[in-house]
Amino acid sequence: MNQILSAPKVRLNDVQILDAQDPLAHCRERFQLPDGVIYLDGNSLGAMPKSVPARMTRAIEQEWAVGLIRSWNDADWYPAPQRVGGRISQLIGAKPHEVIVADSISVNLFKILVAALRMRPGRKRILGEIGNFPTDVYIASGVAELMEAEFIAVEPDDLLAAITEEVAIVSLTHVNYKSGKFYDMAAITQRAHDVGALVVWDLAHTAGAMPCELNAAKADFAVGCGYKYLNGGPGAPAFVFVAERHHQGLDQPLKGWHGHVKPFEFTHDYVAGNGMDRMLVGTAPQLSLIALEAALEAFDGVDMQLLRQKSQALTSLFITLVDQELSEFGFGLATPRDATKRGSQVSLTHPQGYAIIQAHIARGVIGDFRSPNILRFGFASLYISYCDVWNAVMILKDIMINETWKRAEFMKQKAVT
Amino acid sequence: MNQILSAPKVRLNDVQILDAQDPLAHCRERFQLPDGVIYLDGNSLGAMPKSVPARMTRAIEQEWAVGLIRSWNDADWYPAPQRVGGRISQLIGAKPHEVIVADSISVNLFKILVAALRMRPGRKRILGEIGNFPTDVYIASGVAELMEAEFIAVEPDDLLAAITEEVAIVSLTHVNYKSGKFYDMAAITQRAHDVGALVVWDLAHTAGAMPCELNAAKADFAVGCGYKYLNGGPGAPAFVFVAERHHQGLDQPLKGWHGHVKPFEFTHDYVAGNGMDRMLVGTAPQLSLIALEAALEAFDGVDMQLLRQKSQALTSLFITLVDQELSEFGFGLATPRDATKRGSQVSLTHPQGYAIIQAHIARGVIGDFRSPNILRFGFASLYISYCDVWNAVMILKDIMINETWKRAEFMKQKAVT
Repeated sequence: MNQILSAPKVRLNDVQILDAQDPLAHCRERFQLPDGVIYLDGNSLGAMPKSVPARMTRAIEQEWAVGLIRSWNDADWYPAPQRVGGRISQLIGAKPHEVIVADSISVNLFKILVAALRMRPGRKRILGEIGNFPTDVYIASGVAELMEAEFIAVEPDDLLAAITEEVAIVSLTHVNYKSGKFYDMAAITQRAHDVGALVVWDLAHTAGAMPCELNAAKADFAVGCGYKYLNGGPGAPAFVFVAERHHQGLDQPLKGWHGHVKPFEFTHDYVAGNGMDRMLVGTAPQLSLIALEAALEAFDGVDMQLLRQKSQALTSLFITLVDQELSEFGFGLATPRDATKRGSQVSLTHPQGYAIIQAHIARGVIGDFRSPNILRFGFASLYISYCDVWNAVMILKDIMINETWKRAEFMKQKAVT
Repeated sequence: MNQILSAPKVRLNDVQILDAQDPLAHCRERFQLPDGVIYLDGNSLGAMPKSVPARMTRAIEQEWAVGLIRSWNDADWYPAPQRVGGRISQLIGAKPHEVIVADSISVNLFKILVAALRMRPGRKRILGEIGNFPTDVYIASGVAELMEAEFIAVEPDDLLAAITEEVAIVSLTHVNYKSGKFYDMAAITQRAHDVGALVVWDLAHTAGAMPCELNAAKADFAVGCGYKYLNGGPGAPAFVFVAERHHQGLDQPLKGWHGHVKPFEFTHDYVAGNGMDRMLVGTAPQLSLIALEAALEAFDGVDMQLLRQKSQALTSLFITLVDQELSEFGFGLATPRDATKRGSQVSLTHPQGYAIIQAHIARGVIGDFRSPNILRFGFASLYISYCDVWNAVMILKDIMINETWKRAEFMKQKAVT
């Protein structure tokens, strides 16, 4: 790969060789991808693993329709949040009993922020970053309001300096949803621990996209979603991680019956369940949860280091081809050029970004637009090939050259700015 | 029906006539029910409507696999919480824009209790009842802890007297999950309003089981679940109702991005969405939500007054047959004899309740057990026939007569108590 990218010009033949040598190429067969589509969504909904439909049919037509209420036991529905959490733990460097599937990222973040504030009773500051995904910011603001705490967001460059002894919790997204740049999890966590603060990591664009070593980084808490690079289906349930050392004192505010130590004894007083069980609230949306579990089979036997290598190679190839083919069309790069500093996405900027993304989608290349000028492309290493990257860039070039009304509009824009 | 029940003895032929004359009998065909099962679950999971499998196949294999991210717009996934809420509103006497589907009952109750406390800033008391479903009690306790408020639970008979000017919110379940007895919603609400308090109704065992007139009762707030008598599938998403007059001041604490007025502008500051939209938090578990929407087709064209009449007739027939056939076996009745005071369930008591329910299930009659001695039977008027009721009681009688080890155990128990 490095050899190819350092050559004067990358040609289709080079890219085909990369595919032929790809140790993860066989994983593409695990997904059902529509004809004529290159799916570079970045990533609000992962592609559908082929393991899902048959599992869902069984869940609906056998477990629900025939097993009925008995399936909570007979089909092992009850332990699904723990079981699926355990499977996800392998992808994020955690122990199985440190991860559970429940609710959405937003709801889990709420639980964690309140629980973490309660672990630092003398402190009232939640520290975040400007440019974080909005729900993280909104939830933190809501928690601050409720707990008479304060939520302060600083520019990423000012973050380390802002981690002081006033801070109770640092709340960050690992891989930024717009730029694809990621934080050094171990370094930030270390800095926070040095001043007695705790850190919550949002792994929305990390889990399944790249390896992540929560325990090696001494992470305290993390949340993440099931519907992006875990391919769990639209709105798939989210997960939450709490390091084992924090389980004992974990006091989250959404005290629902599934978080009770013995939910089916229907006692009047709440007694928190063991470990992560207390992060459960209401009854899990079982059909969505079953789809997520089936989808995770796409990761069976996948070496996450190979996945990371391929992700870096795909994104590097994309940037190289954009440089090589699109230099005259006014694109900017919002993602770090250094592959060791970005997740599995590349964001371009362009003043006509929205129109270009729409034209690209019309030609079968699905990326997405993030206001005001970001064209975001995600590269799911399990199902994206190097030729997909080649074709995506060539189609984009064709759009820029031939779709004259858009080009005219761009040139006009260029003339005035 | 009344004629039959006042006769000296109900016979199978009488019951068959009731089925022949049942104006809702055709609705049974809308459900896929397994052979050899009489499904009187009371009701933790409704039976599967036949409208679900094909809809789910389309959602998974077309909308997800082929439409991919585009389906949020093209398959109308985004407006599903509002659309499904609107459909449910017709079953509970609300306006379409007063109901939205989101999260679980527990999470929705948390949002509502905090929002309601904020509407009564001078007051700190949440009033509940002893014997309410545990999650309602746990969530209220958790909110009280968080808001420096107090949660007080009183015996149902003491409830009216406890609704005083200290009370901010009265939090009750409409139909009790154990006894099936229901509160006079209008009277309790009136009493609460007289002292300046607000009321939250949990409709878990109401929605779809019997008509409910939230607006006629001047209800403030309600929550309810999708997986019981709405038949939405295991852990189907829940719904929440807020009377239109409270929308303006509604300030719930789980400020997630889907509750923002413009979630896809990704702005830094949270601005609450219009009306019920602000009750949304994270991304809806779309597959579970689609199953719920498809399931609700089972209610198409159903006159809820006819449903209520049938529900009363089914439960009355069950009680009559228990009296007639099982009087010597030591069963008690935990549900009001007056049909106008109970929902769509009948709970019997028996010291050997757990063993009896297990034996009943083994014979194909699925009710459920609630500790310590409740045998709970739910009667879903859309798919339960009068003959089902007859057969359920006759099988129970057979168990009590012929399963000698259980009978011996019961007689021994009877001898010592």
